[in-house]
Amino acid sequence: MTTSTLTPKYFNITYPQENVAHVEINRADKMNSFFEAMWLELHTIFNHLSESPTVRAIILSGAGPKAFTTGLDVKAASEGLLSSDTPVDPARKAFHLRRHISSFQDCISAIERCEKPVIVAIHGFALGLAVDIATAADIRLCASNTKFSVKEVDIGLAADIGTLTRLPKVVGNFGWVKEVALSARVFGAEEAQRVGFVSQVFGSKEEVLKGALELAGLIASKSPVAVLGTKDILNWSRDRSVEDGLRYTSVWNSAALQTNDVKAALLSGIQKRKPTFEKL
Amino acid sequence: MTTSTLTPKYFNITYPQENVAHVEINRADKMNSFFEAMWLELHTIFNHLSESPTVRAIILSGAGPKAFTTGLDVKAASEGLLSSDTPVDPARKAFHLRRHISSFQDCISAIERCEKPVIVAIHGFALGLAVDIATAADIRLCASNTKFSVKEVDIGLAADIGTLTRLPKVVGNFGWVKEVALSARVFGAEEAQRVGFVSQVFGSKEEVLKGALELAGLIASKSPVAVLGTKDILNWSRDRSVEDGLRYTSVWNSAALQTNDVKAALLSGIQKRKPTFEKL
Amino acid sequence: MTTSTLTPKYFNITYPQENVAHVEINRADKMNSFFEAMWLELHTIFNHLSESPTVRAIILSGAGPKAFTTGLDVKAASEGLLSSDTPVDPARKAFHLRRHISSFQDCISAIERCEKPVIVAIHGFALGLAVDIATAADIRLCASNTKFSVKEVDIGLAADIGTLTRLPKVVGNFGWVKEVALSARVFGAEEAQRVGFVSQVFGSKEEVLKGALELAGLIASKSPVAVLGTKDILNWSRDRSVEDGLRYTSVWNSAALQTNDVKAALLSGIQKRKPTFEKL
Amino acid sequence: MTTSTLTPKYFNITYPQENVAHVEINRADKMNSFFEAMWLELHTIFNHLSESPTVRAIILSGAGPKAFTTGLDVKAASEGLLSSDTPVDPARKAFHLRRHISSFQDCISAIERCEKPVIVAIHGFALGLAVDIATAADIRLCASNTKFSVKEVDIGLAADIGTLTRLPKVVGNFGWVKEVALSARVFGAEEAQRVGFVSQVFGSKEEVLKGALELAGLIASKSPVAVLGTKDILNWSRDRSVEDGLRYTSVWNSAALQTNDVKAALLSGIQKRKPTFEKL
Amino acid sequence: MTTSTLTPKYFNITYPQENVAHVEINRADKMNSFFEAMWLELHTIFNHLSESPTVRAIILSGAGPKAFTTGLDVKAASEGLLSSDTPVDPARKAFHLRRHISSFQDCISAIERCEKPVIVAIHGFALGLAVDIATAADIRLCASNTKFSVKEVDIGLAADIGTLTRLPKVVGNFGWVKEVALSARVFGAEEAQRVGFVSQVFGSKEEVLKGALELAGLIASKSPVAVLGTKDILNWSRDRSVEDGLRYTSVWNSAALQTNDVKAALLSGIQKRKPTFEKL
Amino acid sequence: MTTSTLTPKYFNITYPQENVAHVEINRADKMNSFFEAMWLELHTIFNHLSESPTVRAIILSGAGPKAFTTGLDVKAASEGLLSSDTPVDPARKAFHLRRHISSFQDCISAIERCEKPVIVAIHGFALGLAVDIATAADIRLCASNTKFSVKEVDIGLAADIGTLTRLPKVVGNFGWVKEVALSARVFGAEEAQRVGFVSQVFGSKEEVLKGALELAGLIASKSPVAVLGTKDILNWSRDRSVEDGLRYTSVWNSAALQTNDVKAALLSGIQKRKPTFEKL
Repeated sequence: MTTSTLTPKYFNITYPQENVAHVEINRADKMNSFFEAMWLELHTIFNHLSESPTVRAIILSGAGPKAFTTGLDVKAASEGLLSSDTPVDPARKAFHLRRHISSFQDCISAIERCEKPVIVAIHGFALGLAVDIATAADIRLCASNTKFSVKEVDIGLAADIGTLTRLPKVVGNFGWVKEVALSARVFGAEEAQRVGFVSQVFGSKEEVLKGALELAGLIASKSPVAVLGTKDILNWSRDRSVEDGLRYTSVWNSAALQTNDVKAALLSGIQKRKPTFEKL
Repeated sequence: MTTSTLTPKYFNITYPQENVAHVEINRADKMNSFFEAMWLELHTIFNHLSESPTVRAIILSGAGPKAFTTGLDVKAASEGLLSSDTPVDPARKAFHLRRHISSFQDCISAIERCEKPVIVAIHGFALGLAVDIATAADIRLCASNTKFSVKEVDIGLAADIGTLTRLPKVVGNFGWVKEVALSARVFGAEEAQRVGFVSQVFGSKEEVLKGALELAGLIASKSPVAVLGTKDILNWSRDRSVEDGLRYTSVWNSAALQTNDVKAALLSGIQKRKPTFEKL
Repeated sequence: MTTSTLTPKYFNITYPQENVAHVEINRADKMNSFFEAMWLELHTIFNHLSESPTVRAIILSGAGPKAFTTGLDVKAASEGLLSSDTPVDPARKAFHLRRHISSFQDCISAIERCEKPVIVAIHGFALGLAVDIATAADIRLCASNTKFSVKEVDIGLAADIGTLTRLPKVVGNFGWVKEVALSARVFGAEEAQRVGFVSQVFGSKEEVLKGALELAGLIASKSPVAVLGTKDILNWSRDRSVEDGLRYTSVWNSAALQTNDVKAALLSGIQKRKPTFEKL
Repeated sequence: MTTSTLTPKYFNITYPQENVAHVEINRADKMNSFFEAMWLELHTIFNHLSESPTVRAIILSGAGPKAFTTGLDVKAASEGLLSSDTPVDPARKAFHLRRHISSFQDCISAIERCEKPVIVAIHGFALGLAVDIATAADIRLCASNTKFSVKEVDIGLAADIGTLTRLPKVVGNFGWVKEVALSARVFGAEEAQRVGFVSQVFGSKEEVLKGALELAGLIASKSPVAVLGTKDILNWSRDRSVEDGLRYTSVWNSAALQTNDVKAALLSGIQKRKPTFEKL
Repeated sequence: MTTSTLTPKYFNITYPQENVAHVEINRADKMNSFFEAMWLELHTIFNHLSESPTVRAIILSGAGPKAFTTGLDVKAASEGLLSSDTPVDPARKAFHLRRHISSFQDCISAIERCEKPVIVAIHGFALGLAVDIATAADIRLCASNTKFSVKEVDIGLAADIGTLTRLPKVVGNFGWVKEVALSARVFGAEEAQRVGFVSQVFGSKEEVLKGALELAGLIASKSPVAVLGTKDILNWSRDRSVEDGLRYTSVWNSAALQTNDVKAALLSGIQKRKPTFEKL
Repeated sequence: MTTSTLTPKYFNITYPQENVAHVEINRADKMNSFFEAMWLELHTIFNHLSESPTVRAIILSGAGPKAFTTGLDVKAASEGLLSSDTPVDPARKAFHLRRHISSFQDCISAIERCEKPVIVAIHGFALGLAVDIATAADIRLCASNTKFSVKEVDIGLAADIGTLTRLPKVVGNFGWVKEVALSARVFGAEEAQRVGFVSQVFGSKEEVLKGALELAGLIASKSPVAVLGTKDILNWSRDRSVEDGLRYTSVWNSAALQTNDVKAALLSGIQKRKPTFEKL
């Protein structure tokens, strides 16, 4: 099932380098804004790449010069979600909304669940859903012109696709998280780096993509057993006690340490050459 | 019960702007230091404001030029807590102390439990209990002359009204938290901002109050359904796994998305005017 | 059992000041790299110091000019862990590895479990296990020449002695944690300070030791009841909800507040002299 | 505050024996059904008894021959909760409902939070809220004529005052819990005892009260330090891992073991006489 | 998507009564043993029924006279999972196994995640996977001839599709759970009922199906808002503290209480007629 | 270290059958009551057996006709724990008590942490610590003359070596647990079986030992990879959510399924002979 070819409609997938996949949101004429078919497709793509044996690191970016994504396509959303043909009983409507939100969340969580590290390369507008997506990824890089906003309160709702849950675990400054989430104010690349939301700021869209590719290439050159284990254990530990994190790690590594990659890595270290690792 | 008028004795409550309440600790002659009746009153005030339909954001500050608060009124505390007429059996004494601490914690937690965002505007001395209070609030702003200290070890005890529990969740620098909590050393506004304990530093007490009012006003101009949901979900998610945070969010928003505020916000966005939202 | 004299083989223990112990990794000719007997000894040392009544703060550093520690002695490790005489059935091998990892983790966790605050003073190379050790300590100080690396992916494995579990709880910048853990790249003192991994950077090894001693001395001058309670409650709260942290704190302090140290501290405050506290 | 005399309106409070309080729901003419003022009063009563120094065990029962309680007074409830003057926006209505439910839950949880063991003595009808109340208590005894029902689905709602949360933790038969909660079918005393919901069945209301009094008397004759600690630790441990339960226990008992009650108990054991314990 | 017609290959789906679906494992000639395509189909079926507006309760049983299911089709499993063409590196093999197990677990968990109550009607052999499936369901009924076994240790493995995780939460007798899981011994219907694993025992396969249908019919006659809320809250609360269960309940019911079903139920109660509820 | 011969002083260790160890508390003249050296030895024994390659199941019982154990040797305890030469400051005393309790708990938890299943065979008096020990074991069997009591409240303390934490997780009848823990009343073998505390009752001490040996022998005949995995996963899952239990299981089995035992078990099943498994 995982060997089938992906032919996505709203995303470009390229392989700019060995073991690196680049996923590009491809709706530049609409500022890469999302409607339901797009997040369903995003889900499919990341599930596929998660088990694709030749992919070891993934870059996610937005097409066009203007925006990573401006978030929800409000026009599409207001036609769908809030249309009047849903049931009138508020409790029944709540069931439908809950299913809708849970399914939407699950699509974006595919980025976090993806076994391979995901680097987002952000530029231009990065509003609303853009932040949900960015927090589900592992590493955030951005261009200096990026304009971020946890936009949701401005349209009358609490962000529900992950920002409120993940942002406080990504950035260790709870006051700042609350301020930007409660005020919906725009913040730029420099501020994003200062609080630790992005790891690095680049001069332009081209440069942030280049930077992302370099980092993805570096990660992809390492043992995939080591890299995938590292991502999995970090995410597990984030949500649990140190005690539970340590135990899970020892159970995980009881299998992972049996890899040939350790020998390959040690040997190539001694021989001063770059190791190669079998696909996974 | 929530519609009764508040007539606090140790605090001033004013409404400097529509939907914004300002709570001022009013014991400037004693550096706004606290004794039991004061935290019981604080509890009552924040429970009241939490459900007050016309309040959407709250500012908390200290009266007078010298201090936000110097913490516990040590004289009062030593007369009460440590007086000799408590039971002599250490186990029985422990029951009394446990009740006392739990009740005290519960009063300060009223700030965190308050449904509306709470911004503390800090100046001058902010010692001991000041930090417990500040960590229970949502956003911390301060004047450049502020002198903070997690003072408790200096009087022979581990801070027990919230600092040790909340500070590591507010500031993502566990080494710094340990250092200031173990050494009780004073730190200033600039350091507080650098580690993320305060969001912004202002030149004077007047300016920090002005800054707090602007931020409170901005938040109060948003949909209260969105703002209150955002605070609640952020606090819930802080303490739980991403999985549990996402589920809680979807259940919460299954009701909240049925608000008229979404339409009001979208419409006023199109019409380029400021939306108004019904009271909550 | 805790009163016996320690005569470690791979560590120096000195008492540079009243109530302060200094533990030095003493294998400078091998860059202070570790093999099994060393971490077992580390375990014994920290268990001992944890209950030693005259010790109130601990410094941990590495001997020699070059390294805090370069981590695992790869030569020793490859002979031991990965030798071919372990059982061939991968499931049985997994049991042996799991026991080995758990025991190794437990030795390093002795630093975290140690009742007394532990300050690591780092210089030179601080690779692999160095980071595991540093994250288990309470406060990290380093010399400006320090070269850190979460080195494990470079030898084909996910770090399993604590780094992946503790580093995200020490540093509130999850993207940075992922980047350095996935890429194994070296980072220096300044970067370490900027992200909050170390609290202070000093010009040289001598200066970081001096700085550590000053901080340890300051902490050791406080009430040990207050200091040990503060460490314990901070670690407990880190892994649990605010609710559970507050309750634990009130139960803890129901005994701790019955100390004479409060009176001693208050009295010496009034009398403007340095308090003395009984040993614990 | 805790020494004030209680003069409840909807409950009788008597002290049938030294250190034992008996709380009786006193609205027999309406089958002891509840409206809001009653659960607010229940809250006050159990908060009071929790800290009352002369009370060591509590019995809760219903007045009159017919019912422990038939639950919510549906007439009162439909006038209050579901009346049409609540706000029309479903999101705003949800805020009001959430506050209402949380406040209601908090009143019933006062039974669980009460430091002293609470024994419910049940007879006749025990419907809806009766089960919420019973699961918040520590020990359940009933008369053979008792008719239980988790009645809520029959009026179109999921039980929200504690039954769905606590019943699976009280009874180790999750299939049975689901069956009675999903079907709302009536079950009798014998079935309740077989699945472990009640501990003992008595022939009549008089006998169950007598049995409750004997058990309460027995518990009240023990060291209150031991009894209150036992209840607190059992409730804490129920919701947490064994690891966290053990740690909390050791912190708790580090104060509690310093009681004189241990000596009193050991001595009276040797002297074959009944020990007496100081009030707490 | 949820309105499409299901045409399963290995299961029969019938609708024996209004709002009740009956799913039958349909591989009687192989004792209803499972291979991968079957659990993938099971997953699809329960996801479909979960959102099917006309289904309010579900029965799951096995075709033929001999077995509910004998579990994994060992022949198929040994060809697939353990075949020799999987990668040779034990760490890489572990990745493949982990994905396989997680996917398999996820398929069976679809029963638990299904919004509608699921009643399993068990007869004959119910081995290995049968117990995983039964513990994922809500209510277990069986025929008197049922032979259960947690069979996995007999084929050299720890049960990994849910039994070891869910059985201790279904049955409050941890010693019994350990005994049957560690010994793989067969236990019958009577023992299963005594420990609370099944709720009721019937004389024959026909009778257990009849009993399941009656119970399903009873549940399906209630408000679906109430029934689905009850299942969801019970499952959430099982895994969390009472505190977290109560809060989740109040958030859930803040929407659910706005249903028209409450009025419908109350009114039909007064009018002594059976209420009807809109589909959900 | 694990291959050394054990020569315990207060316990007999025999190997009544292949792969089965029998640990007997050997202080019959004092009713097998415990003092500190004994629980330290118990700790050593179970740590040793946990990793002993030839042991697959363990029986624990008490020597002599009268008692499994009457718990703490009160005479020894009162000399030690409560002697007057401990520090006088209640806070300092609390530190010593906390260390003492934690160390004591850790010794008894060695039974739970032991990788191999532990069956306790109980007879005669089983008071206080006896219940702590029994709840730390996996399966409890007893003779019909057994007299159990959670005795601690009778000597003025809350049980702190595990009973209050583990008993509610062993027995799914929280009301019964509270009743016996709060009243300290004696309960017999039949009651213990009815509530699920013991799995089976035998006529005499000899018979319960015979029954334990049969069960231990049965378990020891299974694949040790399967058996040890089953114990570990059951204990992990008990304390965590279903979600976390399932994930841990899949990580565990990703190594364990690579065992040769599966083939050995399947093959011997086909060949109708008893499989043999390599030591672990």
